[in-house]
Amino acid sequence: MTSAPISAGSSPVPASQARLRLIASCPDRVGIVARVATFLAERGASITEANHYHDASSQWFFMRSEFAISVGGAEQRQALLAGLADEFRPIAEGFDMEWRFTDAQRPQRVVILVSRFDHCLAHLLHRWKSGDLPYDLPCVISNHDDLRSLVEWYGVPFHHVPVPRDAAGKEAALKRTAALMDEVAPDTIVLARYMQVFPPWLCARYPSRIINIHHSFLPSFVGGRPYHQAEERGVKLIGATCHYVTEQLDAGPIIEQDVVRIRHSDTIKDMMRLGKDVESAVLARGLRLHLEDRVLVHGHKTILFSE
Amino acid sequence: MTSAPISAGSSPVPASQARLRLIASCPDRVGIVARVATFLAERGASITEANHYHDASSQWFFMRSEFAISVGGAEQRQALLAGLADEFRPIAEGFDMEWRFTDAQRPQRVVILVSRFDHCLAHLLHRWKSGDLPYDLPCVISNHDDLRSLVEWYGVPFHHVPVPRDAAGKEAALKRTAALMDEVAPDTIVLARYMQVFPPWLCARYPSRIINIHHSFLPSFVGGRPYHQAEERGVKLIGATCHYVTEQLDAGPIIEQDVVRIRHSDTIKDMMRLGKDVESAVLARGLRLHLEDRVLVHGHKTILFSE
Amino acid sequence: MTSAPISAGSSPVPASQARLRLIASCPDRVGIVARVATFLAERGASITEANHYHDASSQWFFMRSEFAISVGGAEQRQALLAGLADEFRPIAEGFDMEWRFTDAQRPQRVVILVSRFDHCLAHLLHRWKSGDLPYDLPCVISNHDDLRSLVEWYGVPFHHVPVPRDAAGKEAALKRTAALMDEVAPDTIVLARYMQVFPPWLCARYPSRIINIHHSFLPSFVGGRPYHQAEERGVKLIGATCHYVTEQLDAGPIIEQDVVRIRHSDTIKDMMRLGKDVESAVLARGLRLHLEDRVLVHGHKTILFSE
Amino acid sequence: MTSAPISAGSSPVPASQARLRLIASCPDRVGIVARVATFLAERGASITEANHYHDASSQWFFMRSEFAISVGGAEQRQALLAGLADEFRPIAEGFDMEWRFTDAQRPQRVVILVSRFDHCLAHLLHRWKSGDLPYDLPCVISNHDDLRSLVEWYGVPFHHVPVPRDAAGKEAALKRTAALMDEVAPDTIVLARYMQVFPPWLCARYPSRIINIHHSFLPSFVGGRPYHQAEERGVKLIGATCHYVTEQLDAGPIIEQDVVRIRHSDTIKDMMRLGKDVESAVLARGLRLHLEDRVLVHGHKTILFSE
Repeated sequence: MTSAPISAGSSPVPASQARLRLIASCPDRVGIVARVATFLAERGASITEANHYHDASSQWFFMRSEFAISVGGAEQRQALLAGLADEFRPIAEGFDMEWRFTDAQRPQRVVILVSRFDHCLAHLLHRWKSGDLPYDLPCVISNHDDLRSLVEWYGVPFHHVPVPRDAAGKEAALKRTAALMDEVAPDTIVLARYMQVFPPWLCARYPSRIINIHHSFLPSFVGGRPYHQAEERGVKLIGATCHYVTEQLDAGPIIEQDVVRIRHSDTIKDMMRLGKDVESAVLARGLRLHLEDRVLVHGHKTILFSE
Repeated sequence: MTSAPISAGSSPVPASQARLRLIASCPDRVGIVARVATFLAERGASITEANHYHDASSQWFFMRSEFAISVGGAEQRQALLAGLADEFRPIAEGFDMEWRFTDAQRPQRVVILVSRFDHCLAHLLHRWKSGDLPYDLPCVISNHDDLRSLVEWYGVPFHHVPVPRDAAGKEAALKRTAALMDEVAPDTIVLARYMQVFPPWLCARYPSRIINIHHSFLPSFVGGRPYHQAEERGVKLIGATCHYVTEQLDAGPIIEQDVVRIRHSDTIKDMMRLGKDVESAVLARGLRLHLEDRVLVHGHKTILFSE
Repeated sequence: MTSAPISAGSSPVPASQARLRLIASCPDRVGIVARVATFLAERGASITEANHYHDASSQWFFMRSEFAISVGGAEQRQALLAGLADEFRPIAEGFDMEWRFTDAQRPQRVVILVSRFDHCLAHLLHRWKSGDLPYDLPCVISNHDDLRSLVEWYGVPFHHVPVPRDAAGKEAALKRTAALMDEVAPDTIVLARYMQVFPPWLCARYPSRIINIHHSFLPSFVGGRPYHQAEERGVKLIGATCHYVTEQLDAGPIIEQDVVRIRHSDTIKDMMRLGKDVESAVLARGLRLHLEDRVLVHGHKTILFSE
Repeated sequence: MTSAPISAGSSPVPASQARLRLIASCPDRVGIVARVATFLAERGASITEANHYHDASSQWFFMRSEFAISVGGAEQRQALLAGLADEFRPIAEGFDMEWRFTDAQRPQRVVILVSRFDHCLAHLLHRWKSGDLPYDLPCVISNHDDLRSLVEWYGVPFHHVPVPRDAAGKEAALKRTAALMDEVAPDTIVLARYMQVFPPWLCARYPSRIINIHHSFLPSFVGGRPYHQAEERGVKLIGATCHYVTEQLDAGPIIEQDVVRIRHSDTIKDMMRLGKDVESAVLARGLRLHLEDRVLVHGHKTILFSE
């Protein structure tokens, strides 16, 4: 049996073992866990971590199981996943499940979009390089060229796609941005302080797969210049919110939030500095939860299986 | 020289010593600290803690000095304070100061208003009895009779003043409440989840001396049922806000705020339970800052000398 | 199907439904979850929350399942539990499980032991009375008579058992204390700042069922006067630790810990005051986790299934 | 009058204004504040922030004043400082003061020493480049060559000084390291996970000017492998400590500490990852306090004037 660290890659797994996940949700009824666990046991899967939650108000059931299973070799993990999916499909259909198997050892492909602020990007790049936050980074896209040197030092392709102010120009630029994303087939898109609003057609393209960091403790100070709003109101804490992007600006399902204490002497510039740290941390934590398949979206809310 | 604990009463002071405070604010100019400190030194005052802050945007100056000074005996502290005030007045007028001397050894007289929720009241009563939060408690006033037994167990007078829904009845009830407060000449009034809105005439009567606890992280979820709003939005943190009461509902200067993490599985009832703890803690911390004269109100914001 | 609140009693359960829990741990192998979930499904149990964890270093498996199941009426819940246990025993033996079924709707019987400090006791009494922390409180036992009035105001029996300094006298006193506990058959014993060390025979009597609050962030400042040690070292945070009591003083499995920031100006008396709040909060959180069967002891550590 | 941001450089100061600081401590007696404030006022200094604290146990007085004063131009700030020092000396001697004037607009010269872990270094480099943490960085010195590329990307000189294991070799290497530091006349030296113990002669060379980050919440887990110790003990929080380096290993005056929550499922590798974030944050906060002259060392403790 393999070791089962909670974090992707946080301990070696023998090549003869694959560590996979099954994420599922469906209307609740008796026997779901039994059926799914039996399915896994019949295939010799060893559950290393599993969480199940029943939402009383919606009568919905959510589950995340991480398990180790024998495989001929790393190159056969894909075939194994496909096979499991085929075999599981009838069960899933019987329960009206939304479901997916994922490979805990395959880093997700993440595209990072950024504008001029570099703090979130630098935070993610550093953790990408150290392997502390395991993901593949095929490219970074920005509407400005400022951060090219930083990105390229990490050996990551950088695409500069200016976004004009006029509607037509903006639409064209976002189409080109979308095309660049499509080329690398990302699993997840991170808006690391990307100062452009995604149009509905772009949001719809990656449902629950676009992650944004908002520089306020939503729903406080929705929209622009939250620090100016915070300074105006005289709050004692400022925060940041990591959420999925939907058509409704700043209203997508919240993944993670945190706050930091400020003092009467903190200027807006100080708030921006303090905010950068909490934004970077909240985005990295939210992204980690997402990459580990610990975030299940339910309507406009999230279920977090953070063990 | 006397010891100089930071918290009122946190260490004994010889009877021959009075520990006093000077709180002042005025338009900034050169020499304020020198003039004030010289005034104190000329009278043999030993500064035990002092904070000075210049607000750049308003060009205003704020100061809090705590000092020990010789006095014939405890009974003469009042005379000493009055004498200092008389001597300081011309200096204060020269600088256009808002100012006051306070007696750090005289506990403030606090009246607590409450409705049916007992958590903040119980928290304050316990810390009052233990002396951990030093203040005098001449009475508790409530628009319900539910908490009489709790209050009377502590040996504190309890007044039940029902507040009818109709305007005239409510006005009369609040007049009677105000009269009960006046009888005991409170320094500070605490609304410990008192579910009645104070009318302008009552707010105006105790400027920057009425402290309220709001069960949300303002400005999020202003108004009623904040936990329902929080549950609806799917936030990951809920909070509480301690602020001075002004005519604008929930918009007074904020003294203290804090938050607590919630989980997807937390029901509104769980949020209310978690909220009780953070409300009680935030109100107690805010009240302590106020009782120690560490809160200076500047427009709709506060300066906190919490050093 | 019943609602499935995370906290005992946080939502009504129809009388025709029992909410039960199965807590189990055993050497890991394939099929545990399948077997257990099938057992529950066969009896019409609806899982409302379940957590499974595989400890890689010890190759041990831990599980907690909360489920709703039909029952004739509240009075038959005991029979239902007994029946389930009988039927489950062979399965458990097959897996070499440590296991128990518990009744999520039956409040545990908790005996609180205390000396002179009343902050933790008052905190627990208030949450007991409000129902925010659901448990039965058959009695409070103290080696001093100081807190009798507080306890009796809550209508709870108070036993005063002085503990002499001499070995023989102390042994006799603790035997009498144990006898008083036995009379009420407690599920759990809470040492809410009980300033006496339990002898091995008493610790052994309630394995993983005696909860202590230590007024430091263990392992810092083991033993007595931790605030003096903290003041001496000049630390910037002080803490509290809630742990199970074992023969090794201050070395039992840790359930919960937290810290609070202190300032250079905080005296030992201030630390004690700040410490009281964090002690009370940490003990209450630790006790809640224990009462909800979320704490699984594994050697000298704990697994927390806090969802 | 100038604006008075709390953080160095957080708002522009007219060239005709210098923002300076006076840091002082001495045996307490009446009149210190008056004398110092009068000295400043006589020279037209406008106090923008000042803190005074009397330590009761040692009867010692501590002060930090930040003030704006007219100056012919930036280039004359040094002469102004020197002049003020000459004029202030007799006053300081009269009070037996330890004292210094500092230039709030002159960034300190900081040398960073590092081994192989890059998280603290990357954190400090990023904040240095963004100006969020204002200091000059003449060079980085390491006993390994691993981080050269990172440092040089920032345009900062990197010196590789291997440190052999044998006593003679180590002594020689540290002498060379000290020589490299002397060349750039650092105000402050930061050990950003520099895995070498400084010998007494090197500690003595920069009293209260060498800052270390320790990867545990001291005094817990002194010495090596704190995460292994934490994992062994089963604590629920791990931390980091920023302190001044003295001859006593890990026993110097503590500047800042913080903790992060861990879960039963966190492996030592996970703790190291979580620890990196808290180490980086604690070191940056501690360094900021130090760079703003907010840390006054008193015996083996620190006074923090963080307003």
